[in-house]
Amino acid sequence: MSTVKYAEDLAVGDVVELGSHTVSKAELLDFAGAWDPQEFHVEPEAAEKGWFGGLIASGIHSMAVLQRLSVDGWYRDVSVICGRDLRDVRFLRPVRPDDTLTGSIVVDDVVLDDHGRGLVTTTSELRKADGPVVLSVVTDLYVRRRPAEG
Amino acid sequence: MSTVKYAEDLAVGDVVELGSHTVSKAELLDFAGAWDPQEFHVEPEAAEKGWFGGLIASGIHSMAVLQRLSVDGWYRDVSVICGRDLRDVRFLRPVRPDDTLTGSIVVDDVVLDDHGRGLVTTTSELRKADGPVVLSVVTDLYVRRRPAEG
Repeated sequence: MSTVKYAEDLAVGDVVELGSHTVSKAELLDFAGAWDPQEFHVEPEAAEKGWFGGLIASGIHSMAVLQRLSVDGWYRDVSVICGRDLRDVRFLRPVRPDDTLTGSIVVDDVVLDDHGRGLVTTTSELRKADGPVVLSVVTDLYVRRRPAEG
Repeated sequence: MSTVKYAEDLAVGDVVELGSHTVSKAELLDFAGAWDPQEFHVEPEAAEKGWFGGLIASGIHSMAVLQRLSVDGWYRDVSVICGRDLRDVRFLRPVRPDDTLTGSIVVDDVVLDDHGRGLVTTTSELRKADGPVVLSVVTDLYVRRRPAEG
């Protein structure tokens, strides 16, 4: 079991390579059917004739994939309180059925406060297997400061 | 069936009141189990002892609720191409089991381009039944311009 990281343990410039997740057509349709039932996400035939020439994943689905990879690959080792906000969420390219997406996180800033917290700013990305970035997210996240020894 | 709205049909200051959605404990655990399995989202006992004194919903789940309400209450009537980006996604208050969330959208800007699109900026919110805003999102969305008559 790895040692938990507190805000003091994170440094500007830290890079975390996350794992990968493949978005199957079934998962794409299931997520969008529940949360984002626009026809370019849920109706294959209409999507074929539409702007993107085929089904694309909901942007919220892409964000959910990035979150899951972030939890499994980093947040599990960090004493996270919660996310405060997201900035600059960019849907740069469409995600299509069977795309395999790989994540990464860079620590951009760490600001300690007097309430036992650090506000940690990160830039996270999801990339397709051949390289292009499909999603970029700037996150402000509260992380616990190291408890005083007692 | 309502007439589809194009970018030219949207005006700065338009307000759209969306419907409501109740986040059950089962739905909260299911969403977080799939996409955001941090203990304050998925482990009731650990969450009781944690920062928020009980389970809270994943922020991505709150965003998914807002997206579903936006699709059902507005996007279905608008010729949406896709979202381009989100800005200022603020998780203002925790969402807890059995919270009923109601959505609204305000149109902040409409910029027509020469590629058959308008870039529509909106501010969307989710509120608890007693009023406090839990989520605020600024969205830039591409919407089709009205086709030339032919």
